[in-house]
Amino acid sequence: MTEPFAFTVTALDGNARAGAIAGPRGVVRTPAFMPVGTAAAVKAMFPEDVAAAGADIILANTYHLMLRPGAERIAKLGGLHRFMHWEKPILTDSGGYQVMSLAKLRRIDEEGVTFQSHIDGAGISLTPERAIEVQCLLGADIQMVLDECTSFPATREEANTSLELSLRWARRSKTAFSLHGRPGQALFGIVQGSVYPDLRERSARALIDAAFDGYAIGGLAVGEGQAAMLDMVGVTTAILPQDRPRYLMGVGTPEDLLLSIARGIDMFDCVMPTRSGRHCQAFTWGGKLNLRNARYADDAGPLDPESACPAAQYERAYLHHLVKSGEILGAMLLSYANVQFYQELMARTREAIEQGRFASFAETVRRRYATANDTEDR
Amino acid sequence: MTEPFAFTVTALDGNARAGAIAGPRGVVRTPAFMPVGTAAAVKAMFPEDVAAAGADIILANTYHLMLRPGAERIAKLGGLHRFMHWEKPILTDSGGYQVMSLAKLRRIDEEGVTFQSHIDGAGISLTPERAIEVQCLLGADIQMVLDECTSFPATREEANTSLELSLRWARRSKTAFSLHGRPGQALFGIVQGSVYPDLRERSARALIDAAFDGYAIGGLAVGEGQAAMLDMVGVTTAILPQDRPRYLMGVGTPEDLLLSIARGIDMFDCVMPTRSGRHCQAFTWGGKLNLRNARYADDAGPLDPESACPAAQYERAYLHHLVKSGEILGAMLLSYANVQFYQELMARTREAIEQGRFASFAETVRRRYATANDTEDR
Repeated sequence: MTEPFAFTVTALDGNARAGAIAGPRGVVRTPAFMPVGTAAAVKAMFPEDVAAAGADIILANTYHLMLRPGAERIAKLGGLHRFMHWEKPILTDSGGYQVMSLAKLRRIDEEGVTFQSHIDGAGISLTPERAIEVQCLLGADIQMVLDECTSFPATREEANTSLELSLRWARRSKTAFSLHGRPGQALFGIVQGSVYPDLRERSARALIDAAFDGYAIGGLAVGEGQAAMLDMVGVTTAILPQDRPRYLMGVGTPEDLLLSIARGIDMFDCVMPTRSGRHCQAFTWGGKLNLRNARYADDAGPLDPESACPAAQYERAYLHHLVKSGEILGAMLLSYANVQFYQELMARTREAIEQGRFASFAETVRRRYATANDTEDR
Repeated sequence: MTEPFAFTVTALDGNARAGAIAGPRGVVRTPAFMPVGTAAAVKAMFPEDVAAAGADIILANTYHLMLRPGAERIAKLGGLHRFMHWEKPILTDSGGYQVMSLAKLRRIDEEGVTFQSHIDGAGISLTPERAIEVQCLLGADIQMVLDECTSFPATREEANTSLELSLRWARRSKTAFSLHGRPGQALFGIVQGSVYPDLRERSARALIDAAFDGYAIGGLAVGEGQAAMLDMVGVTTAILPQDRPRYLMGVGTPEDLLLSIARGIDMFDCVMPTRSGRHCQAFTWGGKLNLRNARYADDAGPLDPESACPAAQYERAYLHHLVKSGEILGAMLLSYANVQFYQELMARTREAIEQGRFASFAETVRRRYATANDTEDR
């Protein structure tokens, strides 16, 4: 358990990169999509199926876990991996985003944030140091600095003030991590700056100066639109070092992923595959399907003939019946199929990059997807 | 696919029987517990896990399936087995019980029942002939006659009138089955008679005269209490032929099962393992646990160290966290563990009968269960 955290780019195709993050708990092939296990569970999925779907790494939420069941409790029970029956790497966010979006915020100041738990109303304080302590208690392989996720829209001045606070918190997070982090664990900085290119650049350069193991891009996919998001991604990846993984937080659709990979992103997380699975939506190689649609009532074809996922072999008529009947099995099967689709998308993306045909692969997927989505809406 | 339906008693221990029902889709070892797949899904379980848990046969509900997605639709899609990815035997009830308990009843007369669908209010008619037609469309291996599930309490006269109607419907069901049933499929009669021994006897003898492949005992576990239920079971099994399977419908707790097996019952169905699993209750070899209980928050022990079920290896602290957090995975794991516990209970019961030690086995389980339940309530 003493292998260092190491990132290697193994293939380049334009700005798209294929590579691998090696660590004590195994290799994460990049581009990587991390299924979200908010409360120590990828919703409606057995952990072995998450692995069978092809995921090398999952994300868990510091905010949720510090509130329930508590980081100290998880540590006492042997750490998060053991707790949730997941032996491969785990990335934890720092809790900043959830504090802003879920909790009743009480105060944000230089020291950190204090807020009321959305579960029981208890007053909680989260500082950069505590965020790292919690992530170390959980035993996360990749940890994130505490940041303030700048709300959108924000004026230039608001965005600037926010990113400067996040930078000071990032440096404090790094100091805390240098004291508590274990060998092989990694800490990522988070670039902020809203939709202002110069602020994104300022944030990225300051984080690079502080030297993190990887760099995330935060504060996007919050309402700015795809074009602005991709602009900010491009501005930022142009600055980030080649030899560190780049992680676009909270994104997104298959198209978002491919367009971001084209701009040099290596890692993603999003609730989309699991949340969609619980809401009757299926991502397939033929496009996105709404299984509630009556057109599937007599469709004897499998959900996705092109997928290797066991769940994707179930007939559409049966899945339609399950979701109409409110059967949990419907959510289980669609979540599994969606998570595996995202993993298959990443696997084919890596292969395309290695073979120097990423652009045409991405275009093919996007076109097929767009067509099928149109069909779906008829 | 042409093996006949055949039941063999392979061991007797007092009145407890071990045996096997052989048919085209495989052998059902008895005593057998059938997990309930109401709407063509055992709730919150993948079908392969239902099989892995040890189930040889499941039950599906004619009433639910004729309303949604419709029996003709399932037939067109290749039958219920294919539709729900379950290759082993399926028993379907006739819909009589659900019509009484779920639908807005409009009329019950000699011809059959008419009612409004609880899903969309549509007017539906169910006759003995249609009940068999639906079950044949589904392709059920064991089919049930349409009966009127006598409500409880019922006066002797009400019970008598009801059972006589059920007998006439049973004979019509048999005529319909003789026209539409396929080789290897079986039709069971259902003994009614409320809590009146002579009426139970009248019902049983009349059904025996009509010669069914097996005999169910219906109209119990509806509020009459365990003692009265067991009395009726004993009265009935004393009359039923030795060479036909006996099925106690809708029962029950592990104790109910063991006490009924002691009285010669071979088959059971009940929603208890799956419904309990969705409501934080676990059946284990150490007794029944409520995983919401705060005592489990720090319990690093597995759910059930004595069970071979993969789901029972999850730590109680984690399961407690999942159910407190409302995670679907909690329902998935507890449903799986409960269904497998019921199957393991039947497997050990069969072994005990074969080895002539059923009474002591049953007593041991009951005592351990009672103790653990008491502990649980502290």
